Amino acid sequence: MKLATYKSGRDGVLVVVSRDLSRAIRVPQIATTLQQAVEAWDTLAPKLDEVYQALNAGTLEGAFALDMDTLHSPLPRTYHWADGSAYLNHVQLVRQARNAEMPETFWTDPLMYQGGGDSFIGPYDDIEAVSEEHGIDFEGEIAVITDDVPMAVTPEQAEGHIKLVMLVNDVSLRGLIPGELAKGFGFFQAKPASSFSPICVTPDELGEAWKEGRVHLPLTVHLNGDKFGEPEAGPDMIFTFPQLVAHAARTRYLGAGAVIGSGTVSNPDPNGGPGKPVSDGGVGYSCLAEVRMVEKILHGDSKTPFMRFGDRVRIEMFDKSGNSIFGAIDQQVVKASPKGS
Amino acid sequence: MKLATYKSGRDGVLVVVSRDLSRAIRVPQIATTLQQAVEAWDTLAPKLDEVYQALNAGTLEGAFALDMDTLHSPLPRTYHWADGSAYLNHVQLVRQARNAEMPETFWTDPLMYQGGGDSFIGPYDDIEAVSEEHGIDFEGEIAVITDDVPMAVTPEQAEGHIKLVMLVNDVSLRGLIPGELAKGFGFFQAKPASSFSPICVTPDELGEAWKEGRVHLPLTVHLNGDKFGEPEAGPDMIFTFPQLVAHAARTRYLGAGAVIGSGTVSNPDPNGGPGKPVSDGGVGYSCLAEVRMVEKILHGDSKTPFMRFGDRVRIEMFDKSGNSIFGAIDQQVVKASPKGS
Repeated sequence: MKLATYKSGRDGVLVVVSRDLSRAIRVPQIATTLQQAVEAWDTLAPKLDEVYQALNAGTLEGAFALDMDTLHSPLPRTYHWADGSAYLNHVQLVRQARNAEMPETFWTDPLMYQGGGDSFIGPYDDIEAVSEEHGIDFEGEIAVITDDVPMAVTPEQAEGHIKLVMLVNDVSLRGLIPGELAKGFGFFQAKPASSFSPICVTPDELGEAWKEGRVHLPLTVHLNGDKFGEPEAGPDMIFTFPQLVAHAARTRYLGAGAVIGSGTVSNPDPNGGPGKPVSDGGVGYSCLAEVRMVEKILHGDSKTPFMRFGDRVRIEMFDKSGNSIFGAIDQQVVKASPKGS
Repeated sequence: MKLATYKSGRDGVLVVVSRDLSRAIRVPQIATTLQQAVEAWDTLAPKLDEVYQALNAGTLEGAFALDMDTLHSPLPRTYHWADGSAYLNHVQLVRQARNAEMPETFWTDPLMYQGGGDSFIGPYDDIEAVSEEHGIDFEGEIAVITDDVPMAVTPEQAEGHIKLVMLVNDVSLRGLIPGELAKGFGFFQAKPASSFSPICVTPDELGEAWKEGRVHLPLTVHLNGDKFGEPEAGPDMIFTFPQLVAHAARTRYLGAGAVIGSGTVSNPDPNGGPGKPVSDGGVGYSCLAEVRMVEKILHGDSKTPFMRFGDRVRIEMFDKSGNSIFGAIDQQVVKASPKGS
């Protein structure tokens, strides 16, 4: 099943989307928002799936052509957004670039930060930034949406609470990170509003690509129209989504609609060294920080700049037949122009 | 104006509460939840205030006796919960107890962490904890609720976005903090669900006690029936609430209903040294970690234990006439018993 949210008010309007992303239909008789749907998922998902099957079969009256431009992130806001850093290759590169060892415990205890869920931006919305000096970067990731998760669940129990999968652009302000990490309280200003793919899908939509709690497909990233990365999201994800959800719920309940991210998708080079850019025959990267770290490790200095106002990033994922699964995140960076005071 | 939320479903039911906390009335003709009220505050607050005036005057039909036990936290869940650490005396003690200097920048750049807003517990709900070994602690604090805050507001602009004030128990698992801080991503499992005072109030309800963006009254904390602290919440709050809100909004918009906390209320001793316990004639503390740090600094070792299952904490604030402003947070710690899987 594929779901999306039309822009309308603070929480938008839930629509069921056809598998090929061509058509959609509103479902007010079932739920008006995705938040409502995940709050009563066990009851409502079978009803939504009936609509989905009829929509795919072309037997549904009231369906209309899907206009991607009118979509918001599937959850325009959520009560819980936490992002892991499960691709340890990325973490190792960060450490290596500043000559720091990676603690052994990082292989057994996931990194995760708490983000703000109140003002997600849509998949085609501009990324508003106060200053280019903040080191504006994208991070291509995968995320899951849960229903209500009890405290202290095991990863095995957590798997059943994963209801939907989508893509994320975890916008990061690299220039603010060192100062915030030095303060010891984690990221805050360095992690402004994230955006998500226009479509979220139930894990079964991924077929064989959803196994062992991971998505085994490449994530395709373009920067200003050029392919920047196509890293494989599967095997290098050291912690599975069920493990990340269990980590998040270790000392508290997670409310329905909790969004848990994978962290930046990242692959080492097949020879074990830092991954190569696409232009050198590698799979590239899903964030600028990573190419900059690789440049620093290999050449002593980073030459790729962070994003400037006007730069555009596109993040998407295709199935084995080349069909877009989630639609694309496609966003331009602009100078912030707050609308009020 | 004073507002509260009756327990009912995920977001409860908004009630207007009389100044003396004796009576309440539902206001479905204005808003059914506090979240709805803050989302359209400029329009709805005057209508809520009309009800409040009539309720205080005793001229309102439909009012009923307020039963504190049925109240949830004013916002049972929120899209944005961020907690500052504005009482730098607390931060200095933390550092002193582990022989670390406090960076000079801490006086100009607030500490703030992002918390999870999806599953707040009510003011009388049990604090469910997985293990006493986690070092269960309370933190008595003050928090504000904002409406929509534009990106990059100044503190002067931020002040107008502060709509409501309440108390917080920022439950902390001290045993998990060192490990999480060492990982560099900030608090996560160490900060389980918080609870808030049953009543939230508009700043004008605080009269002269609300000045320069701070609450100039003592916060009263009891542990198992004994007075544990009565620290003054005013002058030692180094960053004002408007400054904390502006800090939170530096690189993003804050959605209506954002909750921004002050951090643990903490006073140094008048002689400039670590604050004394109530039993030694001091104002005491609003968290156990602080008495333990003072014990360590003065005597080389902490003797006060963290909370055990069955221990109870009570946090409240009285006006100059001795009337409770916000009602009390009054909670017992129990062993977690998750209800499902």
